[in-house]
Amino acid sequence: MAMTLIDILLGRRLANREQGDQKIGWFAGVPAMGLDGLGSSSYGPEAALTVLIPLGAIRLAWIGWVIAPIVALLAILYLSYRQTIRAYPSNGGAYTVARENLGATASLLAAAALMIDYVLNVAVGISAGVGALTSSLPALQPWTLELCLGILAVVALANLRGTREAGWLFAVPTYLFLLSFMGLVGWGLVRMIAAGGHPDPVIAPPAIKHGVEAASLWLLLRAFAAGCTAMTGVEAVSNGVGAFREPVVREAHRTLTVICVTLGLLLAGIAVVAQGYRLGAMDQTTPGYQSVLSQLTGAIAGHGALYYVAMASVLAVLCLSANTSFVGFPRICRLVALDGYLPRGFAVADRRLVFSVGVVFLTVTAGMLLLAFGGITDRLIPLFAVGAFLTFTVSQIGMVVHWHKQGPRKQEGRNAGRLAINALGAVTTAVALGVILAAKFVEGAWIVVLAVPAIMALLVAIHLYYTRLSERMAARQPFSIDETDAPTVLVTYEERNRLTDRALRFAMTLSPDVLAVHLLRLGGPEQEEDVRAIHARFDEEVAAPLIAAGRAPPRLVLVPAPYREIEGPLLELVDRIDNDTPGRSVAILIPELVLRHWWQRLLHSRRSAKLRNALLAHAGPRLMVISSPWRS
Amino acid sequence: MAMTLIDILLGRRLANREQGDQKIGWFAGVPAMGLDGLGSSSYGPEAALTVLIPLGAIRLAWIGWVIAPIVALLAILYLSYRQTIRAYPSNGGAYTVARENLGATASLLAAAALMIDYVLNVAVGISAGVGALTSSLPALQPWTLELCLGILAVVALANLRGTREAGWLFAVPTYLFLLSFMGLVGWGLVRMIAAGGHPDPVIAPPAIKHGVEAASLWLLLRAFAAGCTAMTGVEAVSNGVGAFREPVVREAHRTLTVICVTLGLLLAGIAVVAQGYRLGAMDQTTPGYQSVLSQLTGAIAGHGALYYVAMASVLAVLCLSANTSFVGFPRICRLVALDGYLPRGFAVADRRLVFSVGVVFLTVTAGMLLLAFGGITDRLIPLFAVGAFLTFTVSQIGMVVHWHKQGPRKQEGRNAGRLAINALGAVTTAVALGVILAAKFVEGAWIVVLAVPAIMALLVAIHLYYTRLSERMAARQPFSIDETDAPTVLVTYEERNRLTDRALRFAMTLSPDVLAVHLLRLGGPEQEEDVRAIHARFDEEVAAPLIAAGRAPPRLVLVPAPYREIEGPLLELVDRIDNDTPGRSVAILIPELVLRHWWQRLLHSRRSAKLRNALLAHAGPRLMVISSPWRS
Repeated sequence: MAMTLIDILLGRRLANREQGDQKIGWFAGVPAMGLDGLGSSSYGPEAALTVLIPLGAIRLAWIGWVIAPIVALLAILYLSYRQTIRAYPSNGGAYTVARENLGATASLLAAAALMIDYVLNVAVGISAGVGALTSSLPALQPWTLELCLGILAVVALANLRGTREAGWLFAVPTYLFLLSFMGLVGWGLVRMIAAGGHPDPVIAPPAIKHGVEAASLWLLLRAFAAGCTAMTGVEAVSNGVGAFREPVVREAHRTLTVICVTLGLLLAGIAVVAQGYRLGAMDQTTPGYQSVLSQLTGAIAGHGALYYVAMASVLAVLCLSANTSFVGFPRICRLVALDGYLPRGFAVADRRLVFSVGVVFLTVTAGMLLLAFGGITDRLIPLFAVGAFLTFTVSQIGMVVHWHKQGPRKQEGRNAGRLAINALGAVTTAVALGVILAAKFVEGAWIVVLAVPAIMALLVAIHLYYTRLSERMAARQPFSIDETDAPTVLVTYEERNRLTDRALRFAMTLSPDVLAVHLLRLGGPEQEEDVRAIHARFDEEVAAPLIAAGRAPPRLVLVPAPYREIEGPLLELVDRIDNDTPGRSVAILIPELVLRHWWQRLLHSRRSAKLRNALLAHAGPRLMVISSPWRS
Repeated sequence: MAMTLIDILLGRRLANREQGDQKIGWFAGVPAMGLDGLGSSSYGPEAALTVLIPLGAIRLAWIGWVIAPIVALLAILYLSYRQTIRAYPSNGGAYTVARENLGATASLLAAAALMIDYVLNVAVGISAGVGALTSSLPALQPWTLELCLGILAVVALANLRGTREAGWLFAVPTYLFLLSFMGLVGWGLVRMIAAGGHPDPVIAPPAIKHGVEAASLWLLLRAFAAGCTAMTGVEAVSNGVGAFREPVVREAHRTLTVICVTLGLLLAGIAVVAQGYRLGAMDQTTPGYQSVLSQLTGAIAGHGALYYVAMASVLAVLCLSANTSFVGFPRICRLVALDGYLPRGFAVADRRLVFSVGVVFLTVTAGMLLLAFGGITDRLIPLFAVGAFLTFTVSQIGMVVHWHKQGPRKQEGRNAGRLAINALGAVTTAVALGVILAAKFVEGAWIVVLAVPAIMALLVAIHLYYTRLSERMAARQPFSIDETDAPTVLVTYEERNRLTDRALRFAMTLSPDVLAVHLLRLGGPEQEEDVRAIHARFDEEVAAPLIAAGRAPPRLVLVPAPYREIEGPLLELVDRIDNDTPGRSVAILIPELVLRHWWQRLLHSRRSAKLRNALLAHAGPRLMVISSPWRS
């Protein structure tokens, strides 16, 4: 078969047995599942420092108090999710853990929270990346929305080709970002030690303005809540375990370790270096605004080639952090669909073994968010992180129940320790969720608080629909035959040609009772003449040769169609036949011309196809529709 | 049945017998078919005067020499078309006349010319109207294109409801325009006579600049060619005779008379009044530009309420002159389609007895023209009128041949007179066509010269397609039966439910040879277990009860589908069966769930419908596709 456009865009169709080939290892897993978590290190510390701006220079003394609990929380999450991956090596997402341990409602809560966060992550990641790009290159400013949608399209297409290729496509910027900033932070620390705490920056960061407020617990809590955005995406690995190759647990653990350790090091390192080099966040509306990472790179390495490489990797990682959602969202939707809470299309692997309905749905939803907000991040950020921490909490509580249930059976001591770790995780993430909700409620978190139950209600409604349908479809009696006579077969007939010849022949092999139905579209006095002519022609052309061959010919029936639509009169005829021959089915046979080229659609009215669809839609209990295709 | 959105927008479905009700008389015919011709009186004289601008004030002495032959030509056309209408009272368009008298090629020439002119008329009329509107109200300038497309949509919708309603909708501005300008010109003539030739204008027209050229034949010919745009649309009545109620010829004649007489009076009157009041055309790019009709109204009646009523009627008539095309274009396309030169959809009357494919096609084509030219008239005008005069000429030549053929038989004297009139018409319109082509060739008429043969080639290609198809479809042998055995019926089967029960029952009434086909979508080692389980379940649930009832059960066939698409493996199975049982057809029966609500489409994958379409598209010579619909 020749390469089609689809083949070129999406790659060749893959067989089921190629499933294994599509699995990834830890090296591809880090970009595929860690971009969200790692990319957020570029805005998490900055968001925390921004909240602290009213403190003035003293904020640098406090940033440690904000970042330290975030890193501690990250460590707890790391340990918790290691346990989750081991306990659920096939798929350890919050949805599965909650469903198996806490029941359907909790699992739908986790699913709704996850879906919201995945969609938000796409919109926020891409718009933040494009925002950073356009603030470096103001000439691109008018194209913000177009750039956002263009990047979305590229990411979506890469994911429609499949995870493996997408993983490699995203690996370069990820590892470039990690190397650049691990190196920068490390070199900054060395110089700090050499200079005894406060080295001279290569390029001095902007001076920090005087403070207008004293530190308060509420301010620190808000800074903490803002900084917690750095942790979104940590759950992606547990949710995507199914994508790893064997040994699954080891590859997933390695991926999680690389992500969490580098994220933790980056967060802690940025906090320390910011203090040493006196880097404060700036209000984004200030002219000459520089992000914390831009200040940091300038202070440590100056504005040479390394600066541009590092900043380009930030842009790329931010834009591509959307990819984490493209891995996670279709997987969670597939699981929910397999349980009957989402349309089944979400669970169907396409030609590339990708769950493309989920990919497309995510693309469309995120695209609509980008369109609605014009590609501007600021209004979306407060909605962010609520879903992630809701997921964390539900997942940890589920794991606590899991260990509790397992406990009495075996390894009581080890399981008690595991239970303790997950309980600690549950309590800390719940507290963090409370802080985030309180700190961000008015700014937009309330939208998520409303959206989560709305989505849960929709999922339940879908489930109810499928359950009721399958109840109605269930065969309750043993299989039996209630009719044995061949059906009455109606053949739509206008004039004799090879199509109708073929249709009549086929009808006569199906049943001895065949009617050729001719629709009269005219009205008025000319009709009677027509009727005679049509009968005479049919008798001569069809009936006579059959009678001569000793076979009973089909009967010709003329049906007036005064409104030019033909399905109505046909269905009336079917009703009449149903009344005359109760217990016998009626089959309508429609000769259909097969069109081989797209342009033929312009030359044919597709009346047969329209009639077939109309009859199927109006279908009575004993009606069958037969198409006899004829290739010209 | 409840009113749907379609019912509200387009009106209720009409029966064939209501055909007569939709016919119009002369009073509705004038707006329906005359808007184009009458509206062009507002730009015809202006276009001629614009060409004469280089002459300075002397142009007013020459305008009579330009308008007089145009009025004379109009009179000749009037007489010619009266004869055409009487000779072809069912449909006297150039296409019919040419086909009956000159053959297929000439008729396609007329058809192509007519189609081009109808499409151009829509674009030119609407954009000229909107141009006049926005030069009165400059605030609307930025919305030019949107206004054009909005008016196009309104006109199209009115025409999709049907001619009768559209006729009345357009009657008010037409008759308002006629009354206003007949009154204005009449009153202007009275004042001219009273003042002895040159009355004082109420509001003085702008002074006429000095001339830079002397009058030359070439300039006068170019002015004549420009003024000929006033005659476009005169053929509309002859082309739309079929829309008139009985007595057709009388109503059509009256309509043609009203249109031609008022158009002639307006043209002549405007020329005389322009001379008396010294109204010269202005360059449209001059600041403070005023159209000739605006100058005329101001000079005769001042800038009172009458001025605004008259100018509003000009705007309305220009915009709605597009309507003439909406009456004519679908009719000519229908005739061409009935002869097999256009897709048959053009000849199908819709729920409102309108040939809506033509209406929609015209709307889309004209909309694309408006989009391509941004709603700006200037570039379209030179293309205009070529088509109309080409049509006139072909039609008159056809009529000459018509009288020539009829001549010897009866009324020789009268027919000779008629032949003379049409011959005069043919010669004069041919000369005018030559002048128009020469004068406008470089400015854009060459596009029409290229487009006409291109469209003719397309029409011929379509005709060739239909002819060849109908040859291939023609049944050459007498009807005979070549097979008598019932076909092998394959039923797609996944698990037992009421759908599959029903499908199997139906299959068993059609043929003793029924196969339940179960597709295996898995690959790998788990398959063998599955295969056993599926067989066991089928034996228990379906086969056992049938055997107990003494009937032969369907056979279960498992087909692997490694690429998750199911039509490929199914068609391979069909091929195998075809080889095993030559001469017997194969029918594939697909149980199908009927969806009753639009939202159900989101919840079902429509796999059955997709499979059915794929099988129909791949159809082999002995394959039938049976759908057994089931309503939940």
